[in-house]
Amino acid sequence: MRILVSNVGSSSYKFSLLDMAGEEVVASGRVERIGDSPSPYAFAVRDGKSGEGVLDAPDHLSAVEHVMAFLVGEMHGPPALEPLGALDGVGFKAVFAKGYTSSAIVDEAVMQGLEDYIPILPVHNPAYIASLRAFERLAPSAPRVAVFETWFHETIPPHAAELGVPRSWVRDHAIRRYGFHGASHRYVAQRTPTLLRDLGIERAAARDLRLVSCHLGGSSSLCAIQGGASIDTSMGFSAQSGVLQGTRCGDMDPFVPLYMMKAAALTLDEVEEALMSDAGLAGISGAGGDMRDINDAAEGGSADARLALDTYHYGVKKTIGGYAAALGGLDAIAFTGGIGERSAESRAAICAGMEFLGVRVDPDRNAGLEGEGQVSADDSPVPVVVVTANEEIVVARETARLIAVARGQA
Amino acid sequence: MRILVSNVGSSSYKFSLLDMAGEEVVASGRVERIGDSPSPYAFAVRDGKSGEGVLDAPDHLSAVEHVMAFLVGEMHGPPALEPLGALDGVGFKAVFAKGYTSSAIVDEAVMQGLEDYIPILPVHNPAYIASLRAFERLAPSAPRVAVFETWFHETIPPHAAELGVPRSWVRDHAIRRYGFHGASHRYVAQRTPTLLRDLGIERAAARDLRLVSCHLGGSSSLCAIQGGASIDTSMGFSAQSGVLQGTRCGDMDPFVPLYMMKAAALTLDEVEEALMSDAGLAGISGAGGDMRDINDAAEGGSADARLALDTYHYGVKKTIGGYAAALGGLDAIAFTGGIGERSAESRAAICAGMEFLGVRVDPDRNAGLEGEGQVSADDSPVPVVVVTANEEIVVARETARLIAVARGQA
Repeated sequence: MRILVSNVGSSSYKFSLLDMAGEEVVASGRVERIGDSPSPYAFAVRDGKSGEGVLDAPDHLSAVEHVMAFLVGEMHGPPALEPLGALDGVGFKAVFAKGYTSSAIVDEAVMQGLEDYIPILPVHNPAYIASLRAFERLAPSAPRVAVFETWFHETIPPHAAELGVPRSWVRDHAIRRYGFHGASHRYVAQRTPTLLRDLGIERAAARDLRLVSCHLGGSSSLCAIQGGASIDTSMGFSAQSGVLQGTRCGDMDPFVPLYMMKAAALTLDEVEEALMSDAGLAGISGAGGDMRDINDAAEGGSADARLALDTYHYGVKKTIGGYAAALGGLDAIAFTGGIGERSAESRAAICAGMEFLGVRVDPDRNAGLEGEGQVSADDSPVPVVVVTANEEIVVARETARLIAVARGQA
Repeated sequence: MRILVSNVGSSSYKFSLLDMAGEEVVASGRVERIGDSPSPYAFAVRDGKSGEGVLDAPDHLSAVEHVMAFLVGEMHGPPALEPLGALDGVGFKAVFAKGYTSSAIVDEAVMQGLEDYIPILPVHNPAYIASLRAFERLAPSAPRVAVFETWFHETIPPHAAELGVPRSWVRDHAIRRYGFHGASHRYVAQRTPTLLRDLGIERAAARDLRLVSCHLGGSSSLCAIQGGASIDTSMGFSAQSGVLQGTRCGDMDPFVPLYMMKAAALTLDEVEEALMSDAGLAGISGAGGDMRDINDAAEGGSADARLALDTYHYGVKKTIGGYAAALGGLDAIAFTGGIGERSAESRAAICAGMEFLGVRVDPDRNAGLEGEGQVSADDSPVPVVVVTANEEIVVARETARLIAVARGQA
């Protein structure tokens, strides 16, 4: 079975074509700066055929057209996929649609659910809708599957999913904690026990492993995982919640935006835009929301950038402490995502002062790690590991599973 | 020095008259259902003179008039205060005024600050303004001191006070974490080391005692205290933040109210009213926001009431875990406030599963405790105690201090 996994950004489109027999990536690539031509691209297949450059991609449909042309051999030589009918399905790492919390074969009801949640996902959902329509038109025989970011969090118990709003808001508008980054946290939940075993760390065998997964990147969330299942996560109803995000605010006193609408006469749209684009790490640092830029600014002496880093690390640390209490103790911490995998400084700052929980990072090991592995000291009661994110494989497996079920039922 | 401490509610006025030489309460009393005559009252003085009944109190001015009449002997016999000039000052346990975070002798600038924050304290500040004006008129020679709830939290470091909003909101509108229940948390910070020492518990002597203070009641907040100083607290900018409140929401994804304004076409006022009066424990339980009613409903089989309790206890537990991480470990937990002092069930539910932190509650001791004392087992590495709230003494001391300073400077 050949599954194309789509990762859609507001102005980017990335794909991986997987052969599910061996779970191998047959081809992959990306188009960036969609809508801002010329758009850089890079495509490659396993056998070495590759190409990069710029192309004209005024919208997501056009970007997907180029990808399909590449896959069937109309760009950069022989096809990765011949005929197009060899494509069994397209999996989308989607975020959230009204009425859908797990995964679904995409039909018009799912498309409507995506439309309905544009107000809380104004950046993500329009790009997903455009990409789904592109595949519907360009590869109509391949079922499209949406694997929502909320999927892994369906096991969160009611007392952790409650947001304390009026019952009518729950009943009529389904307001609760859904959580995001589901594919990433699920991968961490599956991968960590194996990794711990490979590293020869005792607790790996625990069937009810109490794990905190820290997905840290431009968008960050934490997940408390017990025995492989999510029991709590930091994001709530929208992706602007939980810990500080790159440019988005995170959880807070909800009367802050309401006060600003009165005190500063801001409109609803202005408040939303401010908390979406000018808040979080960018809001504090004044140096944008990218961790590399903030680190550079902090090293250059910016007190605001330093404060942004401290606030971010402190928020993640408090969340880990809260999840240790939720889990009744801690067996392991896993870091993943752009910051989680690559910033030894962030990992060290977050874990500092958590010796009382049994967390002891080895500074040299932490600073020297490349890729996956252990960053805690050998005698740290709670191992701390880095897991290389692989959301694609989670989306591919779920897409293949749903398609197999649909075929079996047909 | 004789200080009258005022505790003003939206429809109540309570007072304690203290002789600061021995910090003794000379007289105390309350008027309730102000604005909804007949208003029940109860007044008493130390020597046994007392009276209760109903009186006509259409507003706070009228309630204060009755209190003054009682104090100077025009009600229920001989005066507690003779002449009125013997009153050295009036201290107010006030909440928050724009531009004031600690304590201040009340002048027109303070009154303006209270006015300015009516949008975030629509219930509290109008009652304070009315009571302050009443004393200005009825006892003009007694300085009025406002001891704000935010006072104890001035030591919170910047990275814990940040709310991740745009810098212009911080600069122009002073948006940050201020925290409330300052008099209560300060009293717990002062009282707990003494109580631990009286109980013969080792760690009491630690000068940098790492303590989590849980003020739980109709309004709840937690405070992380290191060496007697607040380093973090759960409430933020308004009193609708932090953990679940009786009828108020607590911290959450700020896009929830913004979404409801779009999806349900609620007005700003409707959203505020819903999150203020129909949210939190009341929102979930459907049985109001009073813990006794919710407990009764849960015992009567209400699943919603059970969920409200579970959600509340879980939120407090997670906050304690987060503060343990913030403090780098935990030396003691103190419960105070109506729920914290009187609900053994809530204390047990909150502490359950925190054995990994060294917290072990003794069930019999917890269930049997009346007043102050220890509820943890003798071998619990982290002692858990109940502290009887005494915000009045904190307000009285600060009022006396400011008045002495002002006299010295005059």
